[in-house]
Amino acid sequence: MFEHVMAARRRLEGQAHVTPVMTSATFNERVGGAVVFKCENFQRVGAFKFRGAFNAVTCLPEEVRKNGVITFSSGNHAQALALVGRLMDVPVTVVMPEDAPVTKRLATQGYGAEVVLYDPRRESRDALARALQEERGGALIPPYDHPDVIAGQGTATLELHRQVGPLDMLLVPCGGGGLLSGSAVAAHGVMPNCRVIGIEPELADDATRSFRTGVLHRVDNPPTIADGTRTPSLGEHTFPLIREHVSDMQTVSEEAIMAAVRFFFYRMKIVVEPSGVLGAAALLSGVVKPEGRVGVMLSGGNIDHLTMTRILAAAPEDA
Amino acid sequence: MFEHVMAARRRLEGQAHVTPVMTSATFNERVGGAVVFKCENFQRVGAFKFRGAFNAVTCLPEEVRKNGVITFSSGNHAQALALVGRLMDVPVTVVMPEDAPVTKRLATQGYGAEVVLYDPRRESRDALARALQEERGGALIPPYDHPDVIAGQGTATLELHRQVGPLDMLLVPCGGGGLLSGSAVAAHGVMPNCRVIGIEPELADDATRSFRTGVLHRVDNPPTIADGTRTPSLGEHTFPLIREHVSDMQTVSEEAIMAAVRFFFYRMKIVVEPSGVLGAAALLSGVVKPEGRVGVMLSGGNIDHLTMTRILAAAPEDA
Repeated sequence: MFEHVMAARRRLEGQAHVTPVMTSATFNERVGGAVVFKCENFQRVGAFKFRGAFNAVTCLPEEVRKNGVITFSSGNHAQALALVGRLMDVPVTVVMPEDAPVTKRLATQGYGAEVVLYDPRRESRDALARALQEERGGALIPPYDHPDVIAGQGTATLELHRQVGPLDMLLVPCGGGGLLSGSAVAAHGVMPNCRVIGIEPELADDATRSFRTGVLHRVDNPPTIADGTRTPSLGEHTFPLIREHVSDMQTVSEEAIMAAVRFFFYRMKIVVEPSGVLGAAALLSGVVKPEGRVGVMLSGGNIDHLTMTRILAAAPEDA
Repeated sequence: MFEHVMAARRRLEGQAHVTPVMTSATFNERVGGAVVFKCENFQRVGAFKFRGAFNAVTCLPEEVRKNGVITFSSGNHAQALALVGRLMDVPVTVVMPEDAPVTKRLATQGYGAEVVLYDPRRESRDALARALQEERGGALIPPYDHPDVIAGQGTATLELHRQVGPLDMLLVPCGGGGLLSGSAVAAHGVMPNCRVIGIEPELADDATRSFRTGVLHRVDNPPTIADGTRTPSLGEHTFPLIREHVSDMQTVSEEAIMAAVRFFFYRMKIVVEPSGVLGAAALLSGVVKPEGRVGVMLSGGNIDHLTMTRILAAAPEDA
């Protein structure tokens, strides 16, 4: 699998942004550590998802690719795949629930993708996507549970390692586990002593329970503000990789997530979405104690105005 | 004056952050230009003001400095001077109106400065500051109208020139004119063909009128959202420097200012305060046509939650 991540890096060269690394003396003082932030909120489409989507489409044989790609997602993966389709001249179809935010639908259509809506109370998105795939040919590129997607996500960690050298600890947000499994595989390959820790919201702790018990747990539409982690469970590819390569998993409260979003906004002047701050939230709230040189993956920066307003209004500016 | 800016650069080395330069393909596409953003929102205390405050305190003779420094400001300059005082072990007194936002007062006190409140309806801040100075000794460091402050602000342009080479056009926000005059002096010194253009809110266009007529105009507490530009007029130092070194001045609407704040938030994932986006607002709204390689000074990122909420709520996300 590590070779697969290395190959993804070569494919992504000149396509994905090399995102900057940031540090904050105030953050280090508060958590008592030496922390570097990998800013995937500055990635194309505002999230690491571009890496996996680009790698997966590039890996397709030409005769499959020309029939287009299909996915189901109302989040960052949909927009990432839509952009990749536009860049590579591949038709993209996105299956989205009809109650998805209009802005997400417009953004996906804005990149030229076709959006097919479904009624989540009556229809299954998987069945619909598979039916579309059979009808049109082409390939299904799911948001996380796919080896080429996982390999692409792992390239952010290779890049961070090139930028700052080996780390002792790497904190990565976990939803469906695409970024976490890819990051852990990559970290193990280039810095074998680095402990990779996955972070989830308390309200969506299915992966933590799965990791601890070895049995796949599910969670049904958890009410966490970290919308990127509302996935029902780890996948058949991500779960075994996480069991093999991840050292630990921890959870953070909704309050800790919102406080971390405010920290980045007021102190570091960058926009990070709730799912993106999980690693920082774990350090700021004391759930994880920093050891040695610590990397924190800031996975994305796509936040709508109602969510941002709610987070800013929840506490004073110096919190 | 240019030599003064060069000297300030030497003094600031290792003290001020070397702030990053950012670009946006989307921005360039929208405005039809090649634009680099100088991100002083990432400067210490979140604004370019650290440069001028640090330079001014460093220039004081030791026997004056030990008696402390005094200023009047409720904005970024107060916090910048407070931080400089803490770094250099110099007592700082800040005269602030009693109706200044509590968060600004707390932030200034948080850096260890003494805050003296006054009633703006009954007392003059200048008279109060001068009385304190006479009583305590020490030096008055005003927010913009001081050669050492101006020289310090000019170092951001020297740094930008080092980072990206010569520019054809440089857009700089204008309040009291400290950043604009310093930037123009610096630009003239290192890239004499660069046109420096000052940008003001339409609602606070005193400097534009002063620049065009050669007579100092004033404006009384203008209701612009760009709080850093609510200064009453240019100063006796900044006005002649602006007349000599600035090529043009233009104004932007409140709507253009808010749209630019949203652009940085949603598209570039960075937090820039309303006063900081003026140059970008001029390009996005078509008030200034880009010519050649264009630099835009993003002067700061300190924005309170009510202002941010208002700006985000004013238009949909894709605006």
